[in-house]
Amino acid sequence: MTQKIAILPGDGIGPEIIAEAIKVLEYLNSNLGLGLEFERGLIGGAAYDATGVPLPVATVELVKQADAILLGAVGGYKWESLDISLRPEKGLLGLRSELQLFSNLRPAILYPQLANASTLKPEVVSGLDIMIVRELTGGIYFGQPRGLRILDNGEKQGYNTLVYSESEIRRIAHSAFKIAQKRDRRLCSVDKANVLECTELWREVMTEVGKEYPEVELTHMYVDNASMQLVRAPKQFDVMVTSNMFGDILSDTASMLTGSIGMLPSASLDINSKGIYEPVHGSAPDIAGLGIANPLATILSAAMMLRYTFNLGAAADSIEQAVNDALNTNIRTADIYSEGMQKVSTSEMGDAVIKAL
Amino acid sequence: MTQKIAILPGDGIGPEIIAEAIKVLEYLNSNLGLGLEFERGLIGGAAYDATGVPLPVATVELVKQADAILLGAVGGYKWESLDISLRPEKGLLGLRSELQLFSNLRPAILYPQLANASTLKPEVVSGLDIMIVRELTGGIYFGQPRGLRILDNGEKQGYNTLVYSESEIRRIAHSAFKIAQKRDRRLCSVDKANVLECTELWREVMTEVGKEYPEVELTHMYVDNASMQLVRAPKQFDVMVTSNMFGDILSDTASMLTGSIGMLPSASLDINSKGIYEPVHGSAPDIAGLGIANPLATILSAAMMLRYTFNLGAAADSIEQAVNDALNTNIRTADIYSEGMQKVSTSEMGDAVIKAL
Ligand SMILES: CC(C)[C@H](C(=O)O)[C@@H](O)C(=O)O
Ligand SMILES: CC(C)[C@H](C(=O)O)[C@@H](O)C(=O)O
Repeated sequence: MTQKIAILPGDGIGPEIIAEAIKVLEYLNSNLGLGLEFERGLIGGAAYDATGVPLPVATVELVKQADAILLGAVGGYKWESLDISLRPEKGLLGLRSELQLFSNLRPAILYPQLANASTLKPEVVSGLDIMIVRELTGGIYFGQPRGLRILDNGEKQGYNTLVYSESEIRRIAHSAFKIAQKRDRRLCSVDKANVLECTELWREVMTEVGKEYPEVELTHMYVDNASMQLVRAPKQFDVMVTSNMFGDILSDTASMLTGSIGMLPSASLDINSKGIYEPVHGSAPDIAGLGIANPLATILSAAMMLRYTFNLGAAADSIEQAVNDALNTNIRTADIYSEGMQKVSTSEMGDAVIKAL
Repeated sequence: MTQKIAILPGDGIGPEIIAEAIKVLEYLNSNLGLGLEFERGLIGGAAYDATGVPLPVATVELVKQADAILLGAVGGYKWESLDISLRPEKGLLGLRSELQLFSNLRPAILYPQLANASTLKPEVVSGLDIMIVRELTGGIYFGQPRGLRILDNGEKQGYNTLVYSESEIRRIAHSAFKIAQKRDRRLCSVDKANVLECTELWREVMTEVGKEYPEVELTHMYVDNASMQLVRAPKQFDVMVTSNMFGDILSDTASMLTGSIGMLPSASLDINSKGIYEPVHGSAPDIAGLGIANPLATILSAAMMLRYTFNLGAAADSIEQAVNDALNTNIRTADIYSEGMQKVSTSEMGDAVIKAL
């Protein structure tokens, strides 16, 4: 049986970090006979430059036929002045929506070897292991109506709509509760139910779904308080679940607590656990092409793919272990470098992971 | 000439901390002949318990006649199951809107005496001094349409509207640029212009208004990046300006960076610099009535009132200096206590500030 993986390198450092993840996947493929096949497509600024749109039809067809997608990163200064409908980001948003990838998993894990990289005190973040579950295909990112209009008095007005239906909230709730079941069984749902009616419904549905998971402890927190608690005492959290916009903000706060965002993978899944796997960090156009980017977040994203889409938990474990082992040899890419360590390039880091495998 | 100050103690620790701020104001009043007069009103849960609504008509009349408002805090577990329209928070939102207090100033300052209280490493936060300017009467907090509806398929849907017109953005932009002019002349405007049309207009208008303030350096940042940068390198910021919801989240992140939220005041101003002054922290129902709450944020809010509404900069300075002097005598309320310091009560801290004056 073959499994088809669509490869979308994207912009900036995307192609470089993707190359290392493919090296790792191909190594496992030939050693374990996983039957993985790779096919490349265009997305983001690279797609815009080649075809005039950030999400070409060919790419949509490719990802629909694929069993999983591995993505580098999109965006860059070069395309910032384009109309919002043509920006690289629109390619990514289009993919999420086309494939109904409603469940975005963003782990924030502190690697003991990199504890010093955090701007927080060691006792506050040591052992940090949070999973943020972000709703990804609804909310204000996709709500209608949206746009710009001219008011009677002649001035412009901009508007967007935050909207969630029960069923949208219910499916992300199940996603989050199932993940919490397999972890420390504590789920914190984040909303702004004291101000926004839409998130009052969010809280109501979360509470209702929670009854089906009596072994998971469900708590609720307002988003402003959650943003404080992440800084004050992040280890209080196990799994957090929230809407698209709040998840965008809180997952970035959480990832930065670790101080090593170059280490963090993510998964965006549909109802059948097909999905896009990509690093949490961006396309870093300032260091693109220099061969110094950290490929580990992308390699760890490939591990998530093996675990969540292909149910190859053991192979995923072996990649994660190999990343740990590589760090234990004291090699570091520039972003996680500290005194006394040995600085290595993107491909040297990829090679070290393969060696550890 | 007399100046009328409406006093709204509110819920939880509100009455206790307000009492200390009044002690300080009355001391200055009699010594400097400031002509301040105080009149009390009900707000929040306390108002709901007494009158059945969180913002009684009498309170609206009181604040409209007043020159400035000093507020404690609103909210508590007791009222959490009430309908959203009757919650204590609604009283506060109603006040902001009635008085058109569109400009919310939230300083995040690290007191050197309390540097250890931060969960961040000293080198990351020492000397931190950020001013967050939050738009307070528009955006998704007040946008119409909003509510709950039943879809054709029978399921519930919740919705809110994010909306800003040019003139709303323009007036908060002027507020922020004027503040930046008096500080380090760097303004960072936070939006999500790569996804939300409404904040594309935000960015456009900020840029346009910026041309009137050529001496202020204007930068733009996406909200997810801003939430990361606050954790990674908060000292890069001088003044930040953003919309209501983003400001709610980012100002709480910023205040928690200091580790001593019990020290942080805020001001919410209208176009004539009339406003509500209140601590950033909440009503802390768990310690209400124990006489251990930290009154310094409220005392510092009173100082902001003297500076911004009454143009009494020197009197404001003297309060701020007295707070510093009180901390230098090594007394601490429980929330900022650390080993080797002397623990004091709410009123002892208030007395110490007066003594320092
Ligand atoms: C690139 C952008 C549209 C995207 C988002 O806001 O969702 C990114 O910030 C992310 O979090 O994946
Ligand atoms: C109490 C609540 C309505 C309020 C807000 O969200 O504005 C509070 O969090 C604040 O920041 O002043």
